[in-house]
Amino acid sequence: MRRRVAGTFVAHLATAGPDGRPHIVPICFALDDHTLYFAVDFKPKRTTNLKRLRNIAANPAVSILIDHYEDDWDRLWWVRVDGHARVVTDSAEVEGALHLLAQRYVQYRIAKPAGPVVAVSIDGMSGWPDS
Amino acid sequence: MRRRVAGTFVAHLATAGPDGRPHIVPICFALDDHTLYFAVDFKPKRTTNLKRLRNIAANPAVSILIDHYEDDWDRLWWVRVDGHARVVTDSAEVEGALHLLAQRYVQYRIAKPAGPVVAVSIDGMSGWPDS
Repeated sequence: MRRRVAGTFVAHLATAGPDGRPHIVPICFALDDHTLYFAVDFKPKRTTNLKRLRNIAANPAVSILIDHYEDDWDRLWWVRVDGHARVVTDSAEVEGALHLLAQRYVQYRIAKPAGPVVAVSIDGMSGWPDS
Repeated sequence: MRRRVAGTFVAHLATAGPDGRPHIVPICFALDDHTLYFAVDFKPKRTTNLKRLRNIAANPAVSILIDHYEDDWDRLWWVRVDGHARVVTDSAEVEGALHLLAQRYVQYRIAKPAGPVVAVSIDGMSGWPDS
């Protein structure tokens, strides 16, 4: 599962607000041993687009999907990471996460993400098909 | 937004359980005027994989993302559909939804999905970038 995740450059993040409404956004991410990191970047300049952060502050449970789709359904797969998210405040951890992200994304080597870094402590990973 | 959605063949569905935990799965879908349909199909044979249906029964609020990723970040886009989901019980509506799905997916023309059909009444669509 980790090999598939490492070879995929977009994931989808689901959060839920205190009202129970789910919310979903695409993220670029990097994986450490027990933690998945993403940063808030190229966002529209509207307050509503920080809903992911408001949801995480109110309810840190998140579900992240990394998957592959193609017309040949025999080749579909997905990996789901369930965990708890927090905005990273420790500057050394922020720098470490930005380093991991920059290793994967040339865009982050050109310009550091402007927004906060979020760490997702991985509670479990599941995948389909099992392999 | 509807043109982008119609040209994309996988979406991501976020639901939330009564415990507030979000859950995310990939779906194949078809769009009617005010309704997005998907069916439960090629699933692993484990009870946990009906969590999407248990969540919808407890909390019908769903968020669905249709998006495009590529290495050139100037070409990224996403469309989010927020709505309320229900398992379709009316047989005429089931047939109509399966017809829409079969128009988009050759796999559904070969074999009808085995599981229930879910209808998402669209409360709102948002997109990025705005265009």
